Amino acid sequence: MTDVFERADEIADALGPRSDTAQGRRDRVARIAWSCLIEPGDRVAGALVRARGAAEAWELVAGDPDPRELVAGALVDPREARAALDRWRPRRGGGTVHDAVERARRNRIAVITPNDDLWPAAVDDLGDHAPPCLWVRGDVRRLAELTRSVAVVGARAATSYGEHVADEVAAGLARSGIAVVSGAAYGIDGAAHRAALAAGGRTFAFLAGGSDRPYPSGHTDLLERIAATAAVISEVPCGAAPTKWRFLQRNRLIAAVSSATVVVEAGLRSGSLNTAGHAAALGRAIGAVPGPVTSAASAGTHRLLREFDAVCVTSAADARELIGVVPLGDDAVRPPDDPEHTRVRDALSDRTVLTVPAIAARSGMSVADVEAVLGAMLLDGRGEGWRRRRS
Amino acid sequence: MTDVFERADEIADALGPRSDTAQGRRDRVARIAWSCLIEPGDRVAGALVRARGAAEAWELVAGDPDPRELVAGALVDPREARAALDRWRPRRGGGTVHDAVERARRNRIAVITPNDDLWPAAVDDLGDHAPPCLWVRGDVRRLAELTRSVAVVGARAATSYGEHVADEVAAGLARSGIAVVSGAAYGIDGAAHRAALAAGGRTFAFLAGGSDRPYPSGHTDLLERIAATAAVISEVPCGAAPTKWRFLQRNRLIAAVSSATVVVEAGLRSGSLNTAGHAAALGRAIGAVPGPVTSAASAGTHRLLREFDAVCVTSAADARELIGVVPLGDDAVRPPDDPEHTRVRDALSDRTVLTVPAIAARSGMSVADVEAVLGAMLLDGRGEGWRRRRS
Repeated sequence: MTDVFERADEIADALGPRSDTAQGRRDRVARIAWSCLIEPGDRVAGALVRARGAAEAWELVAGDPDPRELVAGALVDPREARAALDRWRPRRGGGTVHDAVERARRNRIAVITPNDDLWPAAVDDLGDHAPPCLWVRGDVRRLAELTRSVAVVGARAATSYGEHVADEVAAGLARSGIAVVSGAAYGIDGAAHRAALAAGGRTFAFLAGGSDRPYPSGHTDLLERIAATAAVISEVPCGAAPTKWRFLQRNRLIAAVSSATVVVEAGLRSGSLNTAGHAAALGRAIGAVPGPVTSAASAGTHRLLREFDAVCVTSAADARELIGVVPLGDDAVRPPDDPEHTRVRDALSDRTVLTVPAIAARSGMSVADVEAVLGAMLLDGRGEGWRRRRS
Repeated sequence: MTDVFERADEIADALGPRSDTAQGRRDRVARIAWSCLIEPGDRVAGALVRARGAAEAWELVAGDPDPRELVAGALVDPREARAALDRWRPRRGGGTVHDAVERARRNRIAVITPNDDLWPAAVDDLGDHAPPCLWVRGDVRRLAELTRSVAVVGARAATSYGEHVADEVAAGLARSGIAVVSGAAYGIDGAAHRAALAAGGRTFAFLAGGSDRPYPSGHTDLLERIAATAAVISEVPCGAAPTKWRFLQRNRLIAAVSSATVVVEAGLRSGSLNTAGHAAALGRAIGAVPGPVTSAASAGTHRLLREFDAVCVTSAADARELIGVVPLGDDAVRPPDDPEHTRVRDALSDRTVLTVPAIAARSGMSVADVEAVLGAMLLDGRGEGWRRRRS
């Protein structure tokens, strides 16, 4: 199982930057191996890698150690450690690393790790649940743009209304230089990616399976275009199948890398509610687009508004506000009319010319106040009295 | 100006209950006179009536006193008192009281005051801005039902979607024995009143003009039906015209008498946002019905959700919850699937029969955990392995 290090140079050259040091190569390769051993979100693996470093932790685990050895220095209790060793054992003999590396090499997929400058720092907010590395298809330099990003997600079973709004919101974000993050599914996700691309902006797709496996297959071309302009990313190794568990964990990754999450349409059991839940747990802003209460496709977003204190998002401007980006020319709401002006205007007539005392009696105001208001108003002043200006 | 008391018995008999004491009659008549002198929301009048009693305050003001006399005992400063005397003066000569009483008598409209048992106590939350009395067309005994009421209000320029939802919400409330309060306008208000009537429930209309003046005139029949089953109410005297100021003040009265306010549809400058603002200021729950973000008629409700922390209301059940009425059979959301079950189910195949170690490797779980989960799941157990049950 430790034999991954025998091929460290070859693997690191193929999947990492040329500038890797010898230690960097060992770390990268160990993280690749960890990525092949565990399922996403494995807290014990995360704690161990953080406490010991990926390579040392790997060597330790490869020796099938006593659970107490795993505990030392990591925030793991012996029972958790034993359970982890038990769940890692069935995969230790597998040839997954070799296969994943081959697939990555063939598809020009890079592996980036927390030691790379381009690693999205926001992922670290997942703590021990953070993935050991990310498998990136596309231009790794674009990952820097995730620092200003909004996830636009929603139901596969979207309505044309939902797709229309996803399009508007994603295009508006992309035009403002904010990256659009989504999950490449049919429906809302696809509409968001396509709109960002059409607007000439950046969009990132996070997959539940390997980033070499276009999923859904009907989005093969879309994923190609995303990879050509930004990146298609996964925490599971190349070749890995998308499973329900990995979808749920992929959702937490989308929530973590994005500065805010907007759910456009979601049924009551939609996976995008799971994404929103992760975003909220991570302290990210969550937005929900309302829709007709008669539409089942909006029932989930209404639940977010009702129960999760999501912000009501009706436009790209609202979505930008979630991450504190406010337009320069602010379209403030007009202040309400002055009460005395309202009352004088009520008292005036379009036709009849009224004296100031008559206006005072009609408006229930003093003569002096009526005179002051009339002086301030743009009205047709006549010698004998006042009447309302026709608009 | 004090001559109202000369006709006190006659007026009180016509507009109040027979059981009035002599003092009760004086108070009722003084409040009627105050109601004719002031515009709604007059804080100085309210403070004075509270401090001195309606009749004594009336006699004091009738004598055109020094502003300092008004100040004594009431929370009014001399400048405010002088301004109030100045604004009341233009109306003191008018014959409005006589006219209003005649109209009320002809239309069988009663005047109720804070001394009547049926006075809606919630109105007192308006403090000095509370009206001196209410002019009630219909069955005054029904006013008791306002203690369990929800205002359903919204734009005159409603869409068929908005009217449909107003209908659903109001009918559902009415069927639960909750009174529906609204403003009798075209659009949402009318739909809410009609639905409550059709459901055989109670609905109350608050008018900006006198309760003898059906407004809008196209709702004359509707107001007739409301008066026949509950009441049409106004704080301005019979004969008074609906003015913009009185609409705004009528909105505050709707907000005060209702336990919660639900805005169904509202443009960005709709008067129903004003009602919601008053409700929020009074500490009443406010609800807003979402709609398509592409609909201008929902822009105001979305603003309530975004900026005023309104509760997202999608049904009559949601509206009932605003006032703490929760259905008995609660439809709790199903708990999320157990993570280990999800992972085992992901690992299983519909076709291929798998061994436990194979399932463990695919799911990234220990053999023991896989066995435990499989034991708990309803699966087709085969001698040689496991596969997913077809649903």
